[in-house]
Amino acid sequence: MTPGHGIIRDETGTQRLIGYTLDVGQPDRRARCRLVVDERHTNRHGVLHGGIAAVLLDNACGATASLTLDDSGRQPFLTISLNTDFIGAGRPGGVTATGRVIGGGRSLVFVGADLVQDDGTLIATASGVFKRVPAEAAP
Amino acid sequence: MTPGHGIIRDETGTQRLIGYTLDVGQPDRRARCRLVVDERHTNRHGVLHGGIAAVLLDNACGATASLTLDDSGRQPFLTISLNTDFIGAGRPGGVTATGRVIGGGRSLVFVGADLVQDDGTLIATASGVFKRVPAEAAP
Amino acid sequence: MTPGHGIIRDETGTQRLIGYTLDVGQPDRRARCRLVVDERHTNRHGVLHGGIAAVLLDNACGATASLTLDDSGRQPFLTISLNTDFIGAGRPGGVTATGRVIGGGRSLVFVGADLVQDDGTLIATASGVFKRVPAEAAP
Amino acid sequence: MTPGHGIIRDETGTQRLIGYTLDVGQPDRRARCRLVVDERHTNRHGVLHGGIAAVLLDNACGATASLTLDDSGRQPFLTISLNTDFIGAGRPGGVTATGRVIGGGRSLVFVGADLVQDDGTLIATASGVFKRVPAEAAP
Repeated sequence: MTPGHGIIRDETGTQRLIGYTLDVGQPDRRARCRLVVDERHTNRHGVLHGGIAAVLLDNACGATASLTLDDSGRQPFLTISLNTDFIGAGRPGGVTATGRVIGGGRSLVFVGADLVQDDGTLIATASGVFKRVPAEAAP
Repeated sequence: MTPGHGIIRDETGTQRLIGYTLDVGQPDRRARCRLVVDERHTNRHGVLHGGIAAVLLDNACGATASLTLDDSGRQPFLTISLNTDFIGAGRPGGVTATGRVIGGGRSLVFVGADLVQDDGTLIATASGVFKRVPAEAAP
Repeated sequence: MTPGHGIIRDETGTQRLIGYTLDVGQPDRRARCRLVVDERHTNRHGVLHGGIAAVLLDNACGATASLTLDDSGRQPFLTISLNTDFIGAGRPGGVTATGRVIGGGRSLVFVGADLVQDDGTLIATASGVFKRVPAEAAP
Repeated sequence: MTPGHGIIRDETGTQRLIGYTLDVGQPDRRARCRLVVDERHTNRHGVLHGGIAAVLLDNACGATASLTLDDSGRQPFLTISLNTDFIGAGRPGGVTATGRVIGGGRSLVFVGADLVQDDGTLIATASGVFKRVPAEAAP
């Protein structure tokens, strides 16, 4: 296995804009979405913007859903619904959202994720419904 | 009233990064968060990233909560919980999230928002719980 | 049209237990779920139990989803996810949850509902994802 | 400690109507809400009604929030928002919802819960925001 196997960078416009990385290569099949928070990612209180937190949680969930199908983490899933609870303030520095499969079947998968500061502080949690995009129907 | 009254631009790092504007000057006291979607805001399917949609919806809701206090739209409210339903694909071009107060009281306000393409197509809806930041406690 | 057309009573064990009625015969195709709240439906604060509110909202949403298919309101839909915001205290007396379709397609439908006291006070709102049960797959 | 310490039965009208028990006496300070599902609790598919599932999850969460204050499990908390994901069909027989504190502070607590069949099958999960009722303000 080569170094960096399973790390997705700069894949989409949003990923390049915000600057997160997506790790779909861990043996627990839980995708990680990581960002080093700086002043581009903060709100008027100087803390991580809730919407940026949602971007990270959504990506970690969607890629974890994808890992239920194969090892690439790139099979497309659409977010149907996402509920996010904002537990604490995210500070500048490294933060990581890690997904976990809660349940589901062939086309719909329930996935949760926690967003955690590098010091272990829980920033936000999310859970949502993700739908497999059929190969012929992918937009 | 001067031109641009009530339009907030480039206020925070996240706002500058993503490039949306926030209109808190409408007589219906419903804040609008507007973005012209381009390739920086799309996901691997070429459509508006769900997380960016969440940023717009969250901002429209939070500023609408703020407008329950005064006309500035700048009194800080924290997002406690936000649930987002993704109804349809957002396409490149103009999209606007518009908030509406659902209920609440002194410190907690329930707010919903719809995110709509300029052609009227509904992209996503959200509802959430927002908490007033006491003046002495604002981070 | 006969009196009581479109009113479903005592159809399921839960409906008989709690005592609500379901109206799927209105021309706006929005299902109503109605309950006369008494001491069997209240929590330790003497107000409508949040779970009972969720029962009413869930039923109104599911039946409204069903009305997207035909006039019977009985085509089965499963609740995939439901988010409920509790706006105010429900008091003993009549309350009605009314559904509305937000969006969706062939198999998944997004539906919202408001639960309102007879005097017009908003008690709770909900939105959720509902899935059509294929005829051959209904449990 | 007497047998049955920490078991709350028949406390409210809703509890008597539906017939669940609430266990607030476990050393992990996670409240359990238990129901033996029978035909009074099922929907038109013969499976546990989603609203009844929400009742159990809501009670387990609220009582777990209460256990953050003292051992009684009876300090009142109001449900502000509750999101429920329906993972699988609940069958007649014993089911238990178990709460867990996710985060929070003085007045708002984030709590999650899982509803599990006695054979270990996950039926539904929930997470929500719960607010402490001040002693002077309890309705």
